This record gives sequence, structure tokens and C-alpha cells, in this order.
Amino acid sequence: MSDPAERKGISRRGLIGAAGAAVATGVAGYAAHSVLAGEASQAADANGPVEFHGPHQAGIVTAVQDRLHFAAFDVTTTKRDELVALLKEWTAAAALLTAGRDIGQYGAVNGPGEAPPEDTGEAVGLPPARLTLTIGFGPSLFDKRFGLAGKRPAALVDLPHFIGDDLDPNRSGGDIAVQACSDDPQVAVHAIRNLARIGFGRVAVRYSQLGFGRTSSTSRAQTTPRNLFGFKDGTNNLKLEDADKLEQQVWVQPGDGAEWMAGGSYLVARRIRMNIEIWDRTSLGEQETIIGRGKGTGAPLGKADEFDPIDFAAKNADGEAKIPMDSHIRLAHPQFNNGAELLRRGYNFVDGSDGLGRLDAGLFFLAYQRDPRKQFIPVQTQLARTDTLNEYIHHVGSGIFACPGGVTPGSYWGEKLFA
Amino acid sequence: MSDPAERKGISRRGLIGAAGAAVATGVAGYAAHSVLAGEASQAADANGPVEFHGPHQAGIVTAVQDRLHFAAFDVTTTKRDELVALLKEWTAAAALLTAGRDIGQYGAVNGPGEAPPEDTGEAVGLPPARLTLTIGFGPSLFDKRFGLAGKRPAALVDLPHFIGDDLDPNRSGGDIAVQACSDDPQVAVHAIRNLARIGFGRVAVRYSQLGFGRTSSTSRAQTTPRNLFGFKDGTNNLKLEDADKLEQQVWVQPGDGAEWMAGGSYLVARRIRMNIEIWDRTSLGEQETIIGRGKGTGAPLGKADEFDPIDFAAKNADGEAKIPMDSHIRLAHPQFNNGAELLRRGYNFVDGSDGLGRLDAGLFFLAYQRDPRKQFIPVQTQLARTDTLNEYIHHVGSGIFACPGGVTPGSYWGEKLFA
Repeated sequence: MSDPAERKGISRRGLIGAAGAAVATGVAGYAAHSVLAGEASQAADANGPVEFHGPHQAGIVTAVQDRLHFAAFDVTTTKRDELVALLKEWTAAAALLTAGRDIGQYGAVNGPGEAPPEDTGEAVGLPPARLTLTIGFGPSLFDKRFGLAGKRPAALVDLPHFIGDDLDPNRSGGDIAVQACSDDPQVAVHAIRNLARIGFGRVAVRYSQLGFGRTSSTSRAQTTPRNLFGFKDGTNNLKLEDADKLEQQVWVQPGDGAEWMAGGSYLVARRIRMNIEIWDRTSLGEQETIIGRGKGTGAPLGKADEFDPIDFAAKNADGEAKIPMDSHIRLAHPQFNNGAELLRRGYNFVDGSDGLGRLDAGLFFLAYQRDPRKQFIPVQTQLARTDTLNEYIHHVGSGIFACPGGVTPGSYWGEKLFA
Repeated sequence: MSDPAERKGISRRGLIGAAGAAVATGVAGYAAHSVLAGEASQAADANGPVEFHGPHQAGIVTAVQDRLHFAAFDVTTTKRDELVALLKEWTAAAALLTAGRDIGQYGAVNGPGEAPPEDTGEAVGLPPARLTLTIGFGPSLFDKRFGLAGKRPAALVDLPHFIGDDLDPNRSGGDIAVQACSDDPQVAVHAIRNLARIGFGRVAVRYSQLGFGRTSSTSRAQTTPRNLFGFKDGTNNLKLEDADKLEQQVWVQPGDGAEWMAGGSYLVARRIRMNIEIWDRTSLGEQETIIGRGKGTGAPLGKADEFDPIDFAAKNADGEAKIPMDSHIRLAHPQFNNGAELLRRGYNFVDGSDGLGRLDAGLFFLAYQRDPRKQFIPVQTQLARTDTLNEYIHHVGSGIFACPGGVTPGSYWGEKLFA
């Protein structure tokens, strides 16, 4: 691996071997190159780049992209300096990758052809496809290895055992998580692969998960997608247009504790296996009663349109609540959770089949929040206890990560944590 | 499951509950409904439908879509009549799905809400996204169960063991394969899921594989994509524009034997795991020597452009062949394989990580051909013996399937086989 100060991004749209024009990465010591001609036009392009730098990390409120590659890493080095060096290299690479650039030359480090290519190459020619890379630090990073124990935020709790949890330790935890989202899976895979490669000898992939078909919207400009139960998912999700609510519910505020987390957010990731074959044998009426919405329209039961306000007090002629007491949308609603909301940006997954001829399918749930103690944990505690949907789902993987605030030019992922 | 004669396709673009307009499926007994207003405009749409009926099955020479869901099924019924009934139901459903329709009502079979929805619903609102569904029959279907032993084509051989094969029986074989290709993974997953569901009690999924980032083009209108080694793949693939070559190399001709296969093709599917972490540590020069092409340009070594003709006789100043004798493009080239070519339409895959922190990544190889005895088998025998690339790949799954000719209105998948 070359010294990161020499890493030059190559436009994937240009020819290999073109002069090594690179975006400014902002990291001290990195050469800032002029932006390639034609680059500006990408910003307005649906395939274009999402700005990497800013007060918050991209990939949280960013309008949800269509594809996911999520990776959790174990840190294998025990040296704090090596970890910091890696985070600097990763930050520089992430700035290039999200700009739609490869992370370096093809073997030009020690002369043409004599070294491995710096970039693995499978994204050459592909546009940025709105790639975002979002980092988070898991509770285990704050053990004795790196002197970070005193920096662990109180909100970065170990998640409790919820009723019904059936967690696979090999799909849970992780010292560091990187969420790659893009409209092109090859771009997302390329990013995670190259970060893993840069980290060789310092981190190892603990688990990774591909996803498709975003199961939430984070912008009113997006339609509401459907999950693998066939229902619209995320109708009442937090949206990037609701700036005030984001401050209340998503972004860690100064004074929340752990000042290095200001402007950041806490991510809870849950691999939720869906028993879709069993669900598919359930009647439409039962499905709609369990969810609390119409399957076709997505409207709350008793209403006509997806975005009609939910009337939890409405009753049928028989006196029963139109939105049943144990329906998912009631139990998960902020009205019954002390106002707690989550910014969800999960993905559907199908990882082939299991040994019993069933699709290994489900929802890779990703939720960002200001404080899991007040948001995910109480909501999930209630859902795990009473949600009828539990007959059709199992939580089989789990992680919690502290995602710091945004990277400003000149800083790197986690700089305030290690300061 | 309702009687297939009552299955009515629902436009995914319309409202649920709209009058059950359906395309004509061609199967006797199916109601032919008028095409919905606005339907015609889809044909010219990149998100539009690919015609299901025709002299050949769609999904073979069809310009390769971006996503794959491939499923191999074991037939669990022992009754020939039940298998035929299933193939009829599948054909009708496939005609609807590829037209961008759901396969039935939402619970309207026994009155609203009292039955499970006929369609699982997750593709509601999504366009056809060029979905194709292609069926093939494996050697095991021709055992004693269904009276088909006498119909087994001589060309549908059991593949021999190739040097280096490390096949997982749980990812190999299968009585029936269905290849779903679409530009939208949710559409492809929805199709396989609903076919599996229709088949409940008669077939069970043996294995399934998702793929992304097509690794070949089948049309000159498509650019050449890159595989996970970072190289352009499929530059010299057979193309749909080469009608004469397709007759010679892809389509089974009358007189080839097994008349029910005329107009069909033989599919070889191989799950090829790539050791990408090891490959990534190989020098650029070594990578290019192994493949025989430049990594950036995709040009044959010694040439400038991807589509420059390969000059296998050209020598470097030191007298060595510019395209090394053990390079992949030489060993796989028709010039050194008695003219044998393959129509490849494989996909990249990443199925998370293995237990050693490596990405479970590779190429799901799909190749169509007129006779595997003259095409895939001799080519792969040579490659398995001498290709330097074998240090970086392992074949871990394998299947061979006889894919019959196209479905004409009024017929069903495999009708000539069961006639």
C-alpha cells in the first residue's frame, strides 16, 4: 500500500493512465488537484456524487439510495497509531470513492505493472451513483486496547436482550461499521472491498450484508417502497425536509454527553429474517390487521390514502379499534412511545436459500437516532413483547454504532474521538 | 392456490382492486383481457416488458439485464400430472410477471380478505424492468419418476469432474432451473418467490443465487462490463446481432437429436468463487498476463483498443508471445477450441463474508450453447488444466439444464417434452 499522501484519485470516467487528477480530500498532506473538466455537471446528475464533507455524515438523511453494502469490521491491530492512520487513509479514500473516483493508480507505485493496482478496478467507467460512506464505532472499540474507554458515550449502550432475539454472534457486533449506499450495487461493493483492502492487517471484515430495494424513504421526493411482506414501509419515516425534527430525533446535540459525538447519530442495525413462506399463507385480512395498513394502498385501516393521518381512536361497528391494539403501526408509533421516532433506511435482502428450501430473506434494518436509550430500545422492547408480527420475523443479527458528526476538509473520520 | 384458469393479472401500475385486466397468456382456458390504457408505451420504455412468447425463450440472447435471481428446484411430487399442471401454472404466471403484472388478486379468491393474497405484493408499483424468466430441465428430471427417461437429450450429459472442481452438492444440480433477469432486483426476486410459492408442495427451492453487475454483453448496443477481478469481461461474447452464429452456436437445430429441444439451448451454470483478496495482491503486470488483456482498456495485450482483433502470433522483443500461451483469452478462444463459442450472461455476486473475513464473492457463470459436449466441456477441460487463473478461482457449484424452445401462445413450458 502506498503512503496515503501519494494516493491519487483517478476519474473513473477518464482513461486509465490519465493524469492523476484528484479531488481535494481535505486531509493535510494530500495533494489537491484541479477538478476534471465536466465534473461539475455530475452534481445535478441522478448518477452524480453526494458531497462527502459537511456538518453531518452523508448517508444518514441522504435520500435513500437503492442498494446497500454494509460491513462490520474487527480491529486486528492493537496499536492506536495504526488505527488512527487507517482512519485517515479511509477518509481520504472515501472522499475519492464518493466523488466517483478510483482510489489510485493501476500499479504505478513502483513502476508500471510491478505493484498490485491500488484500486481493484471493477468500478472503472461507472458513475458515482450517489455513493455515500458512513462510519460508526461499536461499543467494543471502547475497551482497553486503544485508550478510548473514557470516551464511550453513555448512549452507546450494549443493546439488551429483547424477547425473541435469536442473534448469531457472527452477524452481530463489530468494532467499526461502514455503511455504503449507492444506486449501483457494483459501486457499493467496490467501495467496501477497497476499504477492506486498505485495512488489511489492521482490520478484518466481521460480517457484511448486501441489500436492495430500500425499505424507507428519507425524503418527500421519494415514493414509499415495499418490503418483502409486500407492504409499503416507512410511510411516516423521518424525512430530510423536517429539519427541526432531525435535530430533536436524529442528531446528537451539544450537551447530550460525549462532545465528540455532537452532530453525529447512533445507528442500530438489525438483521431481521422474515418467514416469508409462512406470511404468504396468511390471509389478506390477517396481514392487514397485523400491520394496521391496507396492503394495496398503504393507507391506515379505515382510511383511503397512504398519507391520511392515523386515527387510533376510530372504532369499527363492533366497537373494536380500526387500528388493532396489537398492530405494528400502533405499537411502533411515537404517540405510544413517548414521542420517540427513528430515521430508518433499511434494505430488503435475499441471501439465497436456507437448507430447508426457504428463501433466506428479510429486512436489514438500519435506524439512526439521537439516543437509543430513549428511542430504539423502548420501542423495540414494546414491539418484542406484543407485536403480532413477531410470529413472522426473527432478529438474527444486531449491532449498535456511534456515528460521529461530519467530516470537514482537513479532518478525518473519528478525529474528535482520538483528539 | 386458485385454479390457474381463474388467475387474473393485475397491472402493478394501477390501483389494487382495479378491474382485473390481464394480458392474454395464451394458455387455453385463460381469459384474455384487454390491455390497459397506456400499456403500449411501455414497450419502448427501458423499464418496459420483454416479450415472453416467441420462437426462442427470452432471457438468452436478450440484452443482458443488470440483475439476476437464479433458482434451482427439486421436484417433490412424484406425479407426472401434477408436474405438468405446475408447468402450465408457471407459464401463465411467467407471462403475467414479465408483462409487469402481479399474478392475481389480493385475497379476492374466497371473498375479500379471507384468503392469502395470490401475489406477494412487493413489486406493486414497479415497472416490468425488462424481466425475463427462462426455464431449463436438469438431467435428474429424466430419471424414472416422470417417464421422461427416453426423452433425455444426448447433449444433456452429466458434466464431468474438472480438475480443481470443489463442488458443493447443495449448490449444484436441480431438476428444474428458472433464471430471472431484470434491471430491478426486487422484480427478479418477486418473480422467483411467486413461482416458488405457486410450486409449494410440488417443487422446493434447492438453491438460489442473486447476482448484480452483468459480466457480459449480449448486444453491441451494450458496453462491456467488468467482473470482480476489475477486468472487462465478455468482449468477444456472442451477440444477438449475429443471427447466423447464434444458429450455429446457441440454438438447437432440428436434427440435433431430441426434437423437443429444437429452438432451445443448453445452459451451464457454475458458481465460481473468486479469491479476490489474493488477486488484489497480484501485480498489475501479472494480472494482465493471466488474462491477456490490459486492465484499463480491455485491449488484447499489444493492442490499444478493446475491440482490436487479437493477434495470437505477435511476439515481444524477447521472442515471447504477447498474448501468453497460458493466458485466459488464448485458452478460451474459439481458435484454440475447434471454433466452439458460448453465449455468456453471468453475474457478479457478493454473498456477504465467509468465516475468515473474506468477501464471499465471485462470478455466477451462465453460458448457453447448442451442445455442451462440443462447447463448454472441451473448453472448460482445457481451462481447468492449464489456465493460470485457476490459482484465483474455484468452481463451487454446477448445473446443466436443457432449456426448450420458446413458448408460443397456447403452449406451456415443456409442452413438447411432455407431449
